[in-house]
Amino acid sequence: LDPRPIGIFDSGLGGLTVARAVRQALPRERIVYFGDTARIPYGNKSPQTVIRFSRQIARFLGRQRVKFLVVACNTASSWALESLRREAGVPVLGVIEPGAHAAVEVTRNGRIGIIGTEGTVASGAYPRAVRSLRPGARVRMQACPLFVPLVEEGKVSGPVTDLVAREYLRPLLRDRIDTLVLGCTHYPLLKAALQRLVGRHVRIIDSAEETARVLKWSLEQMSLLSKGRGGERFYVSDLSAKFRDHAQRFLGRPIRRVTRVSIERY
Amino acid sequence: LDPRPIGIFDSGLGGLTVARAVRQALPRERIVYFGDTARIPYGNKSPQTVIRFSRQIARFLGRQRVKFLVVACNTASSWALESLRREAGVPVLGVIEPGAHAAVEVTRNGRIGIIGTEGTVASGAYPRAVRSLRPGARVRMQACPLFVPLVEEGKVSGPVTDLVAREYLRPLLRDRIDTLVLGCTHYPLLKAALQRLVGRHVRIIDSAEETARVLKWSLEQMSLLSKGRGGERFYVSDLSAKFRDHAQRFLGRPIRRVTRVSIERY
Repeated sequence: LDPRPIGIFDSGLGGLTVARAVRQALPRERIVYFGDTARIPYGNKSPQTVIRFSRQIARFLGRQRVKFLVVACNTASSWALESLRREAGVPVLGVIEPGAHAAVEVTRNGRIGIIGTEGTVASGAYPRAVRSLRPGARVRMQACPLFVPLVEEGKVSGPVTDLVAREYLRPLLRDRIDTLVLGCTHYPLLKAALQRLVGRHVRIIDSAEETARVLKWSLEQMSLLSKGRGGERFYVSDLSAKFRDHAQRFLGRPIRRVTRVSIERY
Repeated sequence: LDPRPIGIFDSGLGGLTVARAVRQALPRERIVYFGDTARIPYGNKSPQTVIRFSRQIARFLGRQRVKFLVVACNTASSWALESLRREAGVPVLGVIEPGAHAAVEVTRNGRIGIIGTEGTVASGAYPRAVRSLRPGARVRMQACPLFVPLVEEGKVSGPVTDLVAREYLRPLLRDRIDTLVLGCTHYPLLKAALQRLVGRHVRIIDSAEETARVLKWSLEQMSLLSKGRGGERFYVSDLSAKFRDHAQRFLGRPIRRVTRVSIERY
């Protein structure tokens, strides 16, 4: 038994979908969440910068004495996992492997579409993860750089979103994928619009729930589960006027208390 | 005569349009440009964060011994000008006042539309600047948060951009503006698309050239002009794969040398 909290971070607030899934799967665990809202987005920045930012956040969460680090950001999971694992001193779980695992379980025709940021696509982390689980799978990736700003603006449906989504998804549909992985924590808010577009025969995979499942399994294996009353603390690097609104959209309920952190000091 | 360089900064590479205009207006001046590409965008972040980032950059440019600081970013000009003027120890020019000045000169019916980021709109800096020059002017502002990501993705024309632009500009056109200020350094790349949309009777004002004009005038007034051979140095906080491509789009020619700076240390 280990009462220390679980650390979860993202480039912004999208990772709250992971925090929500972890809370549901592990209600007795304490969660410390950090969202790098001052430096969001990570998706179009260089690997060096994404790694540097991720290490600062891991050091901050280390100070909060977390027992496990969950990298809820797909771009950070793509580039920074190795370096975090070397330094963190606690187990580190990204969202790529759980998403890839779920896709391989679900697909029938072996044709898997994965959408994400430019960074996530450029890293090749998803195809590597899928092929290590099922060498014959056919993976088609597509960067969707306008999805994050659309979600941030609350445009989760409507003509602009449909037009943009149709353009991005066309090559995947032409490949006759039967499984679509949402490889960015912002995308679950677009799920309804995307499902309409791809049709009911394509299964959409949101890695948040799968990540929570793998986390639970890992905590059990390592005897790191807590039997406490649970609880959450939220930290961000920027508190904008829209913060509460955005946070509620991803978390599914209001955030009461949040603390701003000067993350570049870590 | 003063051979020290002019410092110009922006949240990213959009301010290169200002650097280009300054170079044309003042070919004998040396320019030091800083683009905060690791933390872009500023437009939807809190005033506190925009001010903190701007002060770090001003300190970095201070170390480069600049004689004049040009804040090419509209959002930073909206929030940080006062605090930079208190600290910089050199004259500080933003892009808001030059843009407002040009708008007041150009308008015939006194109805001025201004588009910018959410931060720029929330600050009220443009309406204040316009009304101080012409109290009776009618200013209508519109935040266009999707324009920066569209430009960053190279979507400077096409159906998505047209659809988004039409939605943003509708209230301005309903107000029968005859002048439209591009209140963000990314927007000049959308000028052709916007001009088609608003029609030829609406004059579009790009504050880059106006800012260069005011800068020249100020340097003359303060006897700060240089008689050197000119020159440029470029610094950024993140060097992504797309950097050269983006930089060339804004500067109008390739950047040969660029240096990455850990700006959070300043």
